[in-house]
Amino acid sequence: MAAVEKPHTGEPAVDWSKGAAWVVGAFVPAADAKVSVFDWGFVRSDVTYDVVHVWHGAFFRLEDHLSRFENSVKGLRMALPVDRDGLRDILMGCVRRSGLREAYVAMVMTRGIPDPSWPKRLPSNFKGNNQLICYAIPFVWIMKPEMQETGGRMIVSEVPRIARHSVDPTIKNYHWGDFTNALFEVEDNDADHAVLIGPDGYVAECPGANVFAVFGGSVVSPVHGALEGVTRKSVHELCDLLGIPNRNDHITRDQLLDADEIFMASTAGGIMPISQVNERILSNGRPGPITKRLHETYWAKHDEGWHTTPVDYDG
Amino acid sequence: MAAVEKPHTGEPAVDWSKGAAWVVGAFVPAADAKVSVFDWGFVRSDVTYDVVHVWHGAFFRLEDHLSRFENSVKGLRMALPVDRDGLRDILMGCVRRSGLREAYVAMVMTRGIPDPSWPKRLPSNFKGNNQLICYAIPFVWIMKPEMQETGGRMIVSEVPRIARHSVDPTIKNYHWGDFTNALFEVEDNDADHAVLIGPDGYVAECPGANVFAVFGGSVVSPVHGALEGVTRKSVHELCDLLGIPNRNDHITRDQLLDADEIFMASTAGGIMPISQVNERILSNGRPGPITKRLHETYWAKHDEGWHTTPVDYDG
Repeated sequence: MAAVEKPHTGEPAVDWSKGAAWVVGAFVPAADAKVSVFDWGFVRSDVTYDVVHVWHGAFFRLEDHLSRFENSVKGLRMALPVDRDGLRDILMGCVRRSGLREAYVAMVMTRGIPDPSWPKRLPSNFKGNNQLICYAIPFVWIMKPEMQETGGRMIVSEVPRIARHSVDPTIKNYHWGDFTNALFEVEDNDADHAVLIGPDGYVAECPGANVFAVFGGSVVSPVHGALEGVTRKSVHELCDLLGIPNRNDHITRDQLLDADEIFMASTAGGIMPISQVNERILSNGRPGPITKRLHETYWAKHDEGWHTTPVDYDG
Repeated sequence: MAAVEKPHTGEPAVDWSKGAAWVVGAFVPAADAKVSVFDWGFVRSDVTYDVVHVWHGAFFRLEDHLSRFENSVKGLRMALPVDRDGLRDILMGCVRRSGLREAYVAMVMTRGIPDPSWPKRLPSNFKGNNQLICYAIPFVWIMKPEMQETGGRMIVSEVPRIARHSVDPTIKNYHWGDFTNALFEVEDNDADHAVLIGPDGYVAECPGANVFAVFGGSVVSPVHGALEGVTRKSVHELCDLLGIPNRNDHITRDQLLDADEIFMASTAGGIMPISQVNERILSNGRPGPITKRLHETYWAKHDEGWHTTPVDYDG
């Protein structure tokens, strides 16, 4: 487990301390992980991705993330250059080089760079041009651990979530324009987080996170209009383990504003308590009791080896 | 006007033949124009851009594009690192190095790379981190000139355009997910182009182009839900010059399918005739008479110096 390695004699040592990436078929330091400005993954956000985390030296729910990523790639009519074993090896290789024990590990598939000679500029022309990019960087917290102690302040955004019939939110994507507009509202209101309502009038999701509300002891998450989060799946499993009723159901704006507790869930931060929604203070401005139990159990389960795959740091 | 220059004695000659770019404050060959995979311009499509073309050695409507780009940057709460003169110089520098007489010239502004130490991951943190990227590459044709002779086949997509209240289409953006889904329909139907209907039921725009319909001698373009195209502006001005009635108005799906003529307009291709919409053949499968007049006048006007700014190739 060395963060600095010498690839060939006589060449300068490679600095992997900020993370490691796999780009165009080779491992490079994270700072060198770049995509062409001509790749449709950039100029058309024609790209899908997934993120798995490493905690205390082990991947969490790695196969769940690999499955979802494979489905996303298929959904965008792209083709992975490697099979699942090959992809797992690349992710392992990124984490190994980085030496990170807690990491944010991404797999990204772009449409690729078009060839000006093609008679039509259509996605199917790109067969073979699709690009796989992977990287491992230090763990990312959507909500910093300090804030998780007291809970964040959420606003219900006035910006409608991009309709699921326009861009399918179950294919993990970088179409954050509506989220970015919601984050402008967060800034303008000196809040921490936002939740967006779908065009059907039901609560959809937060920028980069699923949202949950607790009503009378039951944990409820939206039916559609949101990513089918792997951390959301963990929440449901933890609820079952703890005997907490849980379901996916429609949630209106008014219902959310009247919830007993609210929390968010994401690979980048885990289970994140909300202690204020718009002007309303929840649970005396602290994480609610069910949120707290789920939060504690989520991290305790990591240490028990629940859904973990140890990283082979020695290769 | 040299496509190959020697930057410093003793170093290998730089090959500008595929185009020239300006990235992180320096001119580089287009192939080296890359953006970090950690830039929010990529991972959140938190980016705006504009494209101006060079034809026969002169920019077309350069100031219109610079104005729109400045407004887009402001709309996304980003800050350009240069004023308008500086930006014009950079674009000029890209075209000069490329030596291209016909070019697609882009200016792109990304949010930039976040710093993990920031307490909150919000757009306003990025002040000073916003990145300007510019490039000049060979002219891009959304519809190849050969197809412009006969006209393309358009389908009316079943995918609704992303709602303008979610992502503002007047701030030129890379949120192409709905367009990409529409292009899958184009492929499945062996068509050439697609037009999308907005969630309000009115015709919005095509992937990368404004759409126009001709009804009883009048040229009509959608009121909203579309980019305020610079080529659209040219169409309106050319109509006025030629005495052709023109207006922005709501167009329903049924009205479009019953139009006398249909054409698209974009910087990347100019005025592009449609000779079939879904199963219906227009004008005997040829560009309609008004489309043809506008198409011819559009290119003739370029040669007359209309709205042009000559490129200084000698610097």
